[in-house]
Amino acid sequence: MVETAAREPVPHRRADARREIAAILEAGVRLLGEDPGATMADIAAAAGLSRVTLYGCFPSREALIDAVLDHAVDVADSALRDESFETDPAPEAITRLLRSSWRVLDRHRRLFLAADRALGGERMREHHDRPLRRVRRLIERGREAGDFRTDLPLPWLVTTFFAILSSAAQEVEAGRLKDDEAETVLVQTVRSLLTG
Amino acid sequence: MVETAAREPVPHRRADARREIAAILEAGVRLLGEDPGATMADIAAAAGLSRVTLYGCFPSREALIDAVLDHAVDVADSALRDESFETDPAPEAITRLLRSSWRVLDRHRRLFLAADRALGGERMREHHDRPLRRVRRLIERGREAGDFRTDLPLPWLVTTFFAILSSAAQEVEAGRLKDDEAETVLVQTVRSLLTG
Repeated sequence: MVETAAREPVPHRRADARREIAAILEAGVRLLGEDPGATMADIAAAAGLSRVTLYGCFPSREALIDAVLDHAVDVADSALRDESFETDPAPEAITRLLRSSWRVLDRHRRLFLAADRALGGERMREHHDRPLRRVRRLIERGREAGDFRTDLPLPWLVTTFFAILSSAAQEVEAGRLKDDEAETVLVQTVRSLLTG
Repeated sequence: MVETAAREPVPHRRADARREIAAILEAGVRLLGEDPGATMADIAAAAGLSRVTLYGCFPSREALIDAVLDHAVDVADSALRDESFETDPAPEAITRLLRSSWRVLDRHRRLFLAADRALGGERMREHHDRPLRRVRRLIERGREAGDFRTDLPLPWLVTTFFAILSSAAQEVEAGRLKDDEAETVLVQTVRSLLTG
């Protein structure tokens, strides 16, 4: 009995903590997606939690943004899981992957820029490691088929793919690139990059 | 007499402040160029000043890095002032400008990455506005001469030029791109970007 009484609350506390974290991540994706300057207090309020509870889960704004971005990239990566990327000819597949990636990035543009600001370029790159592995495989396949250039290192082509997408997010946000021309501009830029 | 006595110290104080700021900027360029994590205390010590004096000139690490980067870009921009950029055919001129820019950036790579981390992408872009105006003029001239593509917006080509250079700095620092191959890789990448 004592054992049960002592053990009982643990799963409850765990379940509470899971619910709290889910509420925080949901609020974080939403608020930072509207305003990259959203504060810890804003996010606690939107999640219906106290700031003490929020700080209990995430000790700093940076830690919170790291988790929010991780969550958003996970969701995006699952949405981008499309088998035909693996079977279509590489040039068409990469264009489709680029268009889909841009749409996801554009939807989360402010969150992406807030995270870039809070976490820095190297951590952003780490966060996108999984989706970029798909890009890498596609470029590799295109090179083997003779569709893509082989005069530049493969990791560099993956990096520039990511850099160009990131730049488009920054340019659209700054009003230097129109949202409705970004996709076409990206497709043409990446095509030149990969075919040389 | 009273007037003179009251006015006298001001130029002295100003001269002192100028010397202090020059010492801080010099120490900042040097230290942040070695270690992007250099602290205010490190920089004060290297400049031979107290932390109180340092904070008197720059209220935060971010403000200091902003000034240090501004100073470094100024020096670099003056070094890149070479009249033949304006008279050579655009494709050769841009390749030379790219090579020179990379050498400067590579030398200040850690300072650049520290600044990117502290200030964020949009502020970095503003800091490089002056050197990028030269890039813009060259690309414009190349387009008029029929040497460069015209199917992408001019500001976008300038942005990707900057994004690709910045990426190379990050890649070399992370050990994903060899320092001795960066220049060639950059030249080939930018050529594809501009000729389409």
